[in-house]
Amino acid sequence: MSAVESVRWSADGRAVDIIDQRLLPGTLVRRELRSADDVCDAILTLAVRGAPAIGVAGAMGLVVAIAPFVGDDRERFLARVDEIGERIAHVRPTAVNLSWAIGRLRRVARETAGDSRSVLDFLRREATLILDEDRAMCRRIGEHGLSLLGDDARVLTHCNAGALATGGIGTALAPVYLAAELGRRVAVFADETRPLLQGSRLTAWELSQAGIDVTVLADNMAASLMRAGEVDLVIVGADRIAANGDVANKIGTYPLALAARHHGVPFYVAAPWSTFDPATETGHQIVIEHRAADELGRGFESPVSPTGVAVYNPAFDVTPAALVTAFVTDRGILRPPYRFADAGHADGSAG
Amino acid sequence: MSAVESVRWSADGRAVDIIDQRLLPGTLVRRELRSADDVCDAILTLAVRGAPAIGVAGAMGLVVAIAPFVGDDRERFLARVDEIGERIAHVRPTAVNLSWAIGRLRRVARETAGDSRSVLDFLRREATLILDEDRAMCRRIGEHGLSLLGDDARVLTHCNAGALATGGIGTALAPVYLAAELGRRVAVFADETRPLLQGSRLTAWELSQAGIDVTVLADNMAASLMRAGEVDLVIVGADRIAANGDVANKIGTYPLALAARHHGVPFYVAAPWSTFDPATETGHQIVIEHRAADELGRGFESPVSPTGVAVYNPAFDVTPAALVTAFVTDRGILRPPYRFADAGHADGSAG
Repeated sequence: MSAVESVRWSADGRAVDIIDQRLLPGTLVRRELRSADDVCDAILTLAVRGAPAIGVAGAMGLVVAIAPFVGDDRERFLARVDEIGERIAHVRPTAVNLSWAIGRLRRVARETAGDSRSVLDFLRREATLILDEDRAMCRRIGEHGLSLLGDDARVLTHCNAGALATGGIGTALAPVYLAAELGRRVAVFADETRPLLQGSRLTAWELSQAGIDVTVLADNMAASLMRAGEVDLVIVGADRIAANGDVANKIGTYPLALAARHHGVPFYVAAPWSTFDPATETGHQIVIEHRAADELGRGFESPVSPTGVAVYNPAFDVTPAALVTAFVTDRGILRPPYRFADAGHADGSAG
Repeated sequence: MSAVESVRWSADGRAVDIIDQRLLPGTLVRRELRSADDVCDAILTLAVRGAPAIGVAGAMGLVVAIAPFVGDDRERFLARVDEIGERIAHVRPTAVNLSWAIGRLRRVARETAGDSRSVLDFLRREATLILDEDRAMCRRIGEHGLSLLGDDARVLTHCNAGALATGGIGTALAPVYLAAELGRRVAVFADETRPLLQGSRLTAWELSQAGIDVTVLADNMAASLMRAGEVDLVIVGADRIAANGDVANKIGTYPLALAARHHGVPFYVAAPWSTFDPATETGHQIVIEHRAADELGRGFESPVSPTGVAVYNPAFDVTPAALVTAFVTDRGILRPPYRFADAGHADGSAG
């Protein structure tokens, strides 16, 4: 079995066909997004999530949403592209991949000669290119990362940086999928990843769908597992990587890095080149989003913390570069000392 | 406000009056245990939990359960004490405090002269003594621990080693309660403690009942909090402490100790002398209970991990003695090097 496809064109090419991640791991429902409303709703409600997947779905969604206006004259059509594009990009304003992908389509639209039909056709090709680039990026990360996995590798990961989070086979999970494709034995330990449980709900689901050995554990159990000698390497994704190599990623990444260092377990961060942000000097400049108390206190069937009690609920943490063994990127494996001066989406070459 | 009383005699003295911890933090229900069935059920279903509290409730419960047989002749009555005592002790066979407390009552019964009424009266006094010793043990730990808390101390704790887990003001939380009694400002960060959430459900509840500042966080957030300089010290309880100082405690304790060491935050273990087990050389000899997969995978309203996916779910972990700054016991504060040769319940002097 191979990795699930979280975002693709529908059979008739007129819709974005996504896996509705809100219903996982219970039910696999694919949903066809056929309008701007559908696309915005899917992104807003996290039916589609994961930075690369949101970027891909947003770009493809813009094409679907503007298609009904192909009868408009060129200038009106271009205005529609801008208007609907802005609307989609604003659903999650902090999602860099989303605004980047929408911006790329808007620019391409203006630069394409011809009538509305020509522009629409070109935008469809460009959105498909973004999807294909994302898939290629994942596979390149996987190929580079494969060299880090021995036979019978036991990989610990956090959150979901897999097929569900990208248009392809993921970032952190890409080496795992490639190892499985080659028939090599590989086992994954998936941190459940409180508070939103992307590890137990999503990572465990997508790996088990692909027939890959996966074990769920609570986040606070990973250190014991390493102490028992059961983990060969840690691979996580990243939301943003500062110029000095500090890594912002899902809350719970940092204590994993500490435990890995203590036990001599390699700690790898797998991310596309576009995740490196040369404008951010160090992790200290990264402002961490703090989320609602209810996300932690009301996540269970009955309340799990008393009404009104304060909650500390940061969505991400920062892992100092000194704790990262290496970065696995679509451009190769990077080892210390880190200095990412020319990275990021700015150079236009990475998806 | 002061600490809640998790176990006490009912007003008429004929029942054990407990807080039903299964309903926390939603509802405070006190329940009167009036028979062996009541007592066994409360211990089995975790209505009463925490090693010291179980011991106290078991001893008081035995008194309640044998009272109706006070009309029997002495030998039949003593046989009843043994029979019902064994039944209660077997509800949680691994709970050392329970078998210790029941054993103590059975021994006292045999050693007491006179008729059934005399024996019953003496057992009631002995059970009350066990409760009082437990309360005194907690206060002594609190007094020793108080010296470790500065003004405006910010304390991070894990699981529940508080009033709900003991007959008194807890072990890890005892210094916090005493600081609050003295009118000193103190703030507690309570790890939610997956999978059973004793931190968010119980620790946060009992501290907020006492008017003490408490903030809940997911276990994987504690390292970030330390990195931000928001934690002055960590205090946790212990299930068992080996002769070399290795500490078995609720899963998630060990990564806290690693993070504390990394950030130069003192890591204290508060426990009665009876928790030290000289028969266990090091933590490597401690067999860790692994619990059911459903505890992790089905703890939420809808399934949080796919059906059939493996789960790693140890109930405890072991923190090496080298990571413990000091032990706070009812006999004082112990600093390295550790060698606990004469400790434990065996010496009969600690509750």
